[in-house]
Amino acid sequence: MQAGSPVLICGAGMTRFEKSAASLRELAGAAARDALADAGVEVGQIEAAYVGNAAAGLVTGQEMIRGQVVLRPLGIEGIPIFNVENACASAASALHLGWQAVAAGAHDVVLCLGAEKLTHEDKTVGMRAIGTAIDVEYAADLAAEVGVPAGEGEDRSFFMDLYADMTRRYMAGSGASREDFAAVVVKNQHNGGLNPRAQYGGELSVEQVLASRTVVDPLTLLMCSPISDGAAAVVLMSEAAARRAGRSGPRIRASVVRSGNVHDRSDPTAGSTALAAREAFERAGLGPEDVDCAEVHDASAPAELMVYEQVGFAAPGEGPALLESGRTRLDGDLPVNTSGGLLSKGHPIGATGIAQICESTWQLRGHAGPRQVDGARVALTQNGGGWLEGDSAAMAVHILTAD
Amino acid sequence: MQAGSPVLICGAGMTRFEKSAASLRELAGAAARDALADAGVEVGQIEAAYVGNAAAGLVTGQEMIRGQVVLRPLGIEGIPIFNVENACASAASALHLGWQAVAAGAHDVVLCLGAEKLTHEDKTVGMRAIGTAIDVEYAADLAAEVGVPAGEGEDRSFFMDLYADMTRRYMAGSGASREDFAAVVVKNQHNGGLNPRAQYGGELSVEQVLASRTVVDPLTLLMCSPISDGAAAVVLMSEAAARRAGRSGPRIRASVVRSGNVHDRSDPTAGSTALAAREAFERAGLGPEDVDCAEVHDASAPAELMVYEQVGFAAPGEGPALLESGRTRLDGDLPVNTSGGLLSKGHPIGATGIAQICESTWQLRGHAGPRQVDGARVALTQNGGGWLEGDSAAMAVHILTAD
Repeated sequence: MQAGSPVLICGAGMTRFEKSAASLRELAGAAARDALADAGVEVGQIEAAYVGNAAAGLVTGQEMIRGQVVLRPLGIEGIPIFNVENACASAASALHLGWQAVAAGAHDVVLCLGAEKLTHEDKTVGMRAIGTAIDVEYAADLAAEVGVPAGEGEDRSFFMDLYADMTRRYMAGSGASREDFAAVVVKNQHNGGLNPRAQYGGELSVEQVLASRTVVDPLTLLMCSPISDGAAAVVLMSEAAARRAGRSGPRIRASVVRSGNVHDRSDPTAGSTALAAREAFERAGLGPEDVDCAEVHDASAPAELMVYEQVGFAAPGEGPALLESGRTRLDGDLPVNTSGGLLSKGHPIGATGIAQICESTWQLRGHAGPRQVDGARVALTQNGGGWLEGDSAAMAVHILTAD
Repeated sequence: MQAGSPVLICGAGMTRFEKSAASLRELAGAAARDALADAGVEVGQIEAAYVGNAAAGLVTGQEMIRGQVVLRPLGIEGIPIFNVENACASAASALHLGWQAVAAGAHDVVLCLGAEKLTHEDKTVGMRAIGTAIDVEYAADLAAEVGVPAGEGEDRSFFMDLYADMTRRYMAGSGASREDFAAVVVKNQHNGGLNPRAQYGGELSVEQVLASRTVVDPLTLLMCSPISDGAAAVVLMSEAAARRAGRSGPRIRASVVRSGNVHDRSDPTAGSTALAAREAFERAGLGPEDVDCAEVHDASAPAELMVYEQVGFAAPGEGPALLESGRTRLDGDLPVNTSGGLLSKGHPIGATGIAQICESTWQLRGHAGPRQVDGARVALTQNGGGWLEGDSAAMAVHILTAD
């Protein structure tokens, strides 16, 4: 089926990611409206909607029918609406289901939306919500396993403890240094500075990144993605429907979602990212060497280097060398996180997967402004969610081509 | 696509519905194991899983990766797992997405699971969780609209206020009486008494039902579905995969999910149930007259009569007459809620939609024991979820045939 009916991304819309005064409803509505307008599609043409959100139940109290609630003010009703949750990969999972429906011929025009409101007057609410992306029954065991001293860790997302643990292992295996992680931040904040929708962005030095407050050793504050609000949406169309409407857009060549495997974390090629990327390349009939730009899940700076290896941009242990080569900079031949990534653009968790798709769509259309990658034809996105027994609970890899 | 690749229900499994001491993980695991064993399928053959749950985030604290957490102890990992939420229609929505993947040829063998743990040491937790199946921002407005006096209603699910409001309108339009609603309860509790997986069940009189405590006038306690825990699961297979494995099972002839329309509630043919049922019959190439047995969403007793009219079993206003005719009794020619329905079998909200499919599967296989409908060949299920501006937020109708 992956080679079956072509699916086009005919519209993309996204709010700025920031600590926002707007409600989840307002953020989602703005992104959906922008995507519909970009696609030249009326509300009445949308045949189904797939809505990713991870935390609204715990942050705003809205569970169960989040998509219906945020889409109703736009007049979107009557159609099938599915609420999809896969932690930080919720949006990419929603996209996958929408893609599948169009590829199968069940629908011609669908809306895929990811939206998240994490900020709250009680600052701990968003962080505690993110903490439900693990098996909550064994939270204490996991905290002990990754070295959180009893009574500590309340001031941060537990995922930073997980990332710090992973990072210490990665440093031992690859020789990666704190300076390498800081250099990822410098690169992505530079890109974010060119993205009007990014939460942060601008020129930083490696020294500044290293000098920021330590969250969990070896991660400093600037090496951790921020708490963000925002929404992102795309309109998918079948090729036939797009042709009838005189529309075009990048194609989804592969959409792969997997849950994690229990595996040896020291082997970067055995985890869900590597397996999903391998499957996606196979389905797309492409390889890592064909990718012109990529958006990857840099929820912490070291993760970007690990992902280089996991998706095959670099050999095992060679992530730091790829970064140092400059190839993944905006002016390199394999720019990664041109949007600023999660580190600079922000990480409203249930929106991130589709935000990556928006950036890729703009790159493949040549509409990325000062961030444009010349002649971009093939884009990869990688979006991970949650944590269970040593791997992401959900992992999504998408490969898009310009046509 | 609905007429496309045939999808068979090759295995069904379900826990007893009850106020259970078991955890969500244990309930879900038991139902999934039973469905796999019933299908003769090993864990390693499952290619994807679609998991419906509505309330765990608010009841157990587990959000975001509920399916991964409950399936991991069974060894189900690595495959795509999607967490699907649509209030009380979460399970039927998960089933629809699993059906779509198999019908599209994306997968040959998938698991669809619905699980819910609503009981909690604090009795109000489950009821408050169910209260998030509306637009929570406008909860107070909606309470006022349906006539809940300020400061009242804390002792019950808000949905019973909604149902009471709907019921008062329905009584005015159809002439239905309290005795009619009590007779629905008597019928369904009789059926539940024949179902070892039902929470309640047994012989009651109309007088007993009317004499039970008033929850919200005109609904008495026995006219309201109970708070329940439980899980239900099915294994879906493509016809080709089933043939290779020497398995068979009922076919899904139509799977329709819709969100509600803003509509005149006094017209039973304009709402989501009527629209979804009409579409399902059209896709299946069948009509209401072809149905041999049905499981419908009797979250309150009057709803069953309304659904008779909405799905076309009875003309508008003729729901009470259909009941009085005896045709929907177990010994009639159109038995409805042979399982006991939500009223007697119980209503663990995120499990209900697939529990309806389990009962239909057993009926179509001739495995329903003392509840067996002789020669059942066509079954209909109707599962609604949430409430938004005068209609269910999500509505699912499935039509199954014996072969």
